Amino acid sequence: MIMAQGYFDHNATTPLDESVLARMMPYMQEQFGNPSSRHGFGRAARQAVDEARERVADAVGAHPSQIIFTSGGTEANNLAIRGMAAALPPSQVIWGSIEHPCVAKPCQSLKAQGWMSRPLEADAAGRFDMNDLARALESTTGLVSVMLVNNETGVLQDVAEVAKQARAAGARVHTDAVQALGKVRLDFAELGVHAMSLSSHKVYGPKGVGALVLDKRVELMPQMTGGGHEKGLRAGTENVPGIVGFAAACELALGRMELDAERLGRMRDELEAGVAVLGGVIFGARAQRLANTSYFAFPGIEGETLLIALDRAGFAVASGSACASGSSEPSPVLLAMGVEPELAKGAIRVSLGRGNNMQQTESFIRVLQVELERLRALSAVAVM
Amino acid sequence: MIMAQGYFDHNATTPLDESVLARMMPYMQEQFGNPSSRHGFGRAARQAVDEARERVADAVGAHPSQIIFTSGGTEANNLAIRGMAAALPPSQVIWGSIEHPCVAKPCQSLKAQGWMSRPLEADAAGRFDMNDLARALESTTGLVSVMLVNNETGVLQDVAEVAKQARAAGARVHTDAVQALGKVRLDFAELGVHAMSLSSHKVYGPKGVGALVLDKRVELMPQMTGGGHEKGLRAGTENVPGIVGFAAACELALGRMELDAERLGRMRDELEAGVAVLGGVIFGARAQRLANTSYFAFPGIEGETLLIALDRAGFAVASGSACASGSSEPSPVLLAMGVEPELAKGAIRVSLGRGNNMQQTESFIRVLQVELERLRALSAVAVM
Repeated sequence: MIMAQGYFDHNATTPLDESVLARMMPYMQEQFGNPSSRHGFGRAARQAVDEARERVADAVGAHPSQIIFTSGGTEANNLAIRGMAAALPPSQVIWGSIEHPCVAKPCQSLKAQGWMSRPLEADAAGRFDMNDLARALESTTGLVSVMLVNNETGVLQDVAEVAKQARAAGARVHTDAVQALGKVRLDFAELGVHAMSLSSHKVYGPKGVGALVLDKRVELMPQMTGGGHEKGLRAGTENVPGIVGFAAACELALGRMELDAERLGRMRDELEAGVAVLGGVIFGARAQRLANTSYFAFPGIEGETLLIALDRAGFAVASGSACASGSSEPSPVLLAMGVEPELAKGAIRVSLGRGNNMQQTESFIRVLQVELERLRALSAVAVM
Repeated sequence: MIMAQGYFDHNATTPLDESVLARMMPYMQEQFGNPSSRHGFGRAARQAVDEARERVADAVGAHPSQIIFTSGGTEANNLAIRGMAAALPPSQVIWGSIEHPCVAKPCQSLKAQGWMSRPLEADAAGRFDMNDLARALESTTGLVSVMLVNNETGVLQDVAEVAKQARAAGARVHTDAVQALGKVRLDFAELGVHAMSLSSHKVYGPKGVGALVLDKRVELMPQMTGGGHEKGLRAGTENVPGIVGFAAACELALGRMELDAERLGRMRDELEAGVAVLGGVIFGARAQRLANTSYFAFPGIEGETLLIALDRAGFAVASGSACASGSSEPSPVLLAMGVEPELAKGAIRVSLGRGNNMQQTESFIRVLQVELERLRALSAVAVM
């Protein structure tokens, strides 16, 4: 058991909800069948997967036949981009300059198949630049991939508008909705995209499962082949407990979304008021953002150093995105927003979740004040 | 709870061992961190993944750095074949005619990249034909993929000898060891292959996790990119509970392997004696086989029909491999062994496991006798 005053890193991963775990347990115990088996054990597993497919579809305004279960968001993003591109003649792929690496890298890798790779610019508030989209779409474009919500800033993007313009230009459109699921209302049909990626472990569901929601009129080349699972689009024995848990987590999120957003929004606003008083610069604040996310920096203070200090004091936060940690480079998302590299290196992300409360955010501000004073005193000594 | 006299389909999937589930539980509860996170929750998750990597490596005679965790056996097979081929100039790929579809299909799909696809023949006992291998290797060959144990017949293959000859011809060698893990001693270094696929849910571990064991001197192009997980060879947030469970299952299997094989072998032999008395033809019996697997047919009796009858009587068996069920085509494995299509359509696979006992196999033979008599009476009526 890790002692902590507060886990403030819900955009990296969330604890598995107890009620979700309870729904998974039978499939980790007596109902262990392989859904491809014809006997009773197999049929029970198949039924569980079918029901889960309906629940996930319901949560995102899709039809069950549009859900392709994957091992997570990264696989869903790779499948969408590589799979749609493989069915098209090479042209241009447009992808957001603030995308997660699991979108940016597959898009860039299409260059090996003769594609042109064109990043889409973001403005200072962290939103996609629609003028740049218009410019980019002047070249023949096969594929556009833009995220619905940025994982670092929490900034919401107007994907419906991107999709409208991209479709008018004849392109296929994919959106990475991993950080949006459970935090904002999601409607696959309304968004007008051809494909949308989801992940379970960001919504209090189990790790190792996600989905690609796909408009089946679009051709998709499977990236893993074998047994005819997921209608031939994704082979591999279904992770039945994971799929059941993902569906339960979607259902739960749908029910609590508004309540969670309101409660976490109040805590986030209090926290940001404290950050501002302590001299912090808040990123993406001028754009529409997720209620749970705050991304900020204190000039002159390294994000990594502050993260470690806060961790010692019992608060788990991120510096940049979790997947990019380990590198001490400033966040590419902040650089794309035009933030100075020096300031970007100070970035700290707080992402609140269901288990957090106002006592924790208040305590966090007190701890932050103490740590900032200590670090500023150290750097004052260092420059003497 | 499904009522059953006996679950006899362990080659399709196994129940999750209770002790394995117990090892997973902390990672589905308080220790829920993302291994890429820098704080305490993240570091605890990273440590769990590191320890699991050591355990899996120990179980198969590999070094921890050679283990790439995947979402399962299908992904490991696809990654090995597509990933190694992408780093080579197109030439010939040789794959066993009795491979699982998740090896056969990726091998066949290499034709789109300019490869020649060459199935390797099997003999009547279900073993690879080494003369055919020698003939196949006369053409320039980049890649050879041969399974260690066939999932339907349980027949063991001399992969070490295939690897030796393939290496001498300058080819990369992959083996699908999914059905071998936990049932026969596995030593990656001794086998002499460049890559070896493993799956967790076949060894009383959780579904949704597996591994590719890779000789890191071989270039492998990742098939999913994003965060730098698994040293850049397989992106995606690690399925921590799944990985921990897989490792626990490997450890458990290593300890019980000999005992299991001896006990299940005795039960299987009793069962096959009964099958023979009832007029059954046993496939692969002349080759060295897994102790737990029996594959047989009764002339004139459809496998699917018998499967359903046995299921109603409480016995879960397979007809052909689970992944190919749903189709009424005879097993391609049996056809490759030269079995008549009419007889192949009758194939029933019994695969025993830890939960089975001699009372169950004895009861199975009694039930089988009753059902065969009933079905034979029906077909006698049908031809009148």
